[in-house]
Amino acid sequence: MYYNKFIEKIKKFDVITIFRHINPDADAFGSQLGLKYWLNLNFPEKEVYVLGDENSNDDFFPKMDVISDVLIEQSLAIIVDSATSERIDGNYNKASYIIKIDHHVDVDPYGDLNIVEVKSAATCQLLAKMFFSFEEYKMNKNIAETLYRGLLTDTLAFKTSNTTSESLLIASKLSEYGLDIPQLNRDMFDKSLSEFIFSSKLRSKLQLSKDKKLGYVIMNLDEVNNSGLEAHQIRSNVSEFNAIKELEIWCVFTQKIENNQILYDGSLRSKTIVINELAQKFNGGGHKNACGVKDLTKEDLNIIINELTLLSSK
Amino acid sequence: MYYNKFIEKIKKFDVITIFRHINPDADAFGSQLGLKYWLNLNFPEKEVYVLGDENSNDDFFPKMDVISDVLIEQSLAIIVDSATSERIDGNYNKASYIIKIDHHVDVDPYGDLNIVEVKSAATCQLLAKMFFSFEEYKMNKNIAETLYRGLLTDTLAFKTSNTTSESLLIASKLSEYGLDIPQLNRDMFDKSLSEFIFSSKLRSKLQLSKDKKLGYVIMNLDEVNNSGLEAHQIRSNVSEFNAIKELEIWCVFTQKIENNQILYDGSLRSKTIVINELAQKFNGGGHKNACGVKDLTKEDLNIIINELTLLSSK
Repeated sequence: MYYNKFIEKIKKFDVITIFRHINPDADAFGSQLGLKYWLNLNFPEKEVYVLGDENSNDDFFPKMDVISDVLIEQSLAIIVDSATSERIDGNYNKASYIIKIDHHVDVDPYGDLNIVEVKSAATCQLLAKMFFSFEEYKMNKNIAETLYRGLLTDTLAFKTSNTTSESLLIASKLSEYGLDIPQLNRDMFDKSLSEFIFSSKLRSKLQLSKDKKLGYVIMNLDEVNNSGLEAHQIRSNVSEFNAIKELEIWCVFTQKIENNQILYDGSLRSKTIVINELAQKFNGGGHKNACGVKDLTKEDLNIIINELTLLSSK
Repeated sequence: MYYNKFIEKIKKFDVITIFRHINPDADAFGSQLGLKYWLNLNFPEKEVYVLGDENSNDDFFPKMDVISDVLIEQSLAIIVDSATSERIDGNYNKASYIIKIDHHVDVDPYGDLNIVEVKSAATCQLLAKMFFSFEEYKMNKNIAETLYRGLLTDTLAFKTSNTTSESLLIASKLSEYGLDIPQLNRDMFDKSLSEFIFSSKLRSKLQLSKDKKLGYVIMNLDEVNNSGLEAHQIRSNVSEFNAIKELEIWCVFTQKIENNQILYDGSLRSKTIVINELAQKFNGGGHKNACGVKDLTKEDLNIIINELTLLSSK
């Protein structure tokens, strides 16, 4: 079993570097730092570094380390939560041995050892499961809390279709380490007042198809510029419309100007209808029920709204 | 152990009546029906009735039974999720033997047998735990789903302070019966478009104390009357403000006219500050972090907003 191989490699190296994907989310940070804390607890003699350019704004995911390439070369590199080598943030490929730990489809098994479990809702879930399988190694509150954060966010609080009985079981075992469950939920999901006020404004701009199965918002250039947010941050607020009974599909489009041309980008979501095939026709793609489109002309925008109206009514 | 006593009594009676509290929530319905389905599965020879006046609007909690008092008199009555005898919906006290099954503080042990576990986040959690403890009895998807609904709502999707590792463990075991987790979450938490539009309007009316630690909404009589909702339904939308980082306390007040006097009722919530002691001074009460006040004059309203401002700033 690859869990034993993982331990074998850990024992072999004095220096361990932990990488994750660019644009890190809480599962990337959580699995990176949870792994670091676990190694610190169980292998205190090892030098362990967490690497990557971007830092989280959140206090609960501390800053990354900065080290020389020479150290990386000596190291065992462990990459967490990155499906492809392209998305890895840092010079992981200089390392002596590479372990990939991930829960996405293994299209790019870039590791010398690949620990990939696609049924895991989060890399944090996979790591916790592996750690719990080792009877000889310890767990503590700090590790448990860090992994819980990632599991919580990748399942949107145990609500998404990737949430399994194993996700809930792992959450249960982690919470036994004295976790403050309501506080962890607040940390990961609460919004600032300014975010709240913006999202309320976005909600008020919802337009509906005739049968109310499609809902969409179009934010024009002025509204985008006055929001104090990046366009992609505005579009991520598409989740404001997640919990409306009538809607089958919902989207947020933002206007932009590129090369003197007015264009639109969009984030699309659906309950169960497959929408990424349509998105692919409009310079986009993603998951079946969560995807994006970009660089639409006004005409494209009208076409895609019509197409989505038809899809939503099926 | 009282679980064995429970089985002993079930075996003894041919007729079993299941009661719950008035103004039933999903935990009341879920535990009532989950228990019925479990009895139907494991004791198919018994007559089992679910009783209570109000019916749920939700398709997933079917209608109640209507039976004669004579049948109740012959029956074993099981009352779920009701802390006090006052709140029980129906003539349970005519029954031959009474079992109370609940997770609230046992201020009123009205049962001949009282199965009360206050550490349980939901009566559905307690029932599931009891059912899983019986190796000789079966569970199925229908029972598991019904209990999961109650557990989900009483913990607000595993977020409240009553959520424990046991809650998550029970959820994990229930979900093994092939539950559709995202669908169950949608069933219990999605809002209709009209509810969504109303809550967006309520959000836009948020007022803040100077340091932004108190947030409150006052809905005047016209707004209440035009909402198409009962005043208590408006106040239950106080949960719209649950997830704002800055707020320590948040409230919704609704205006009413009684005996030609303008008065206000309110729903108050806090993250961690104890607010029910203040509520008790204004004809109200409830839990430490979730309580209500009623029949406030305009002057009372100003006083309580000042008091809450002070409390929130501590």
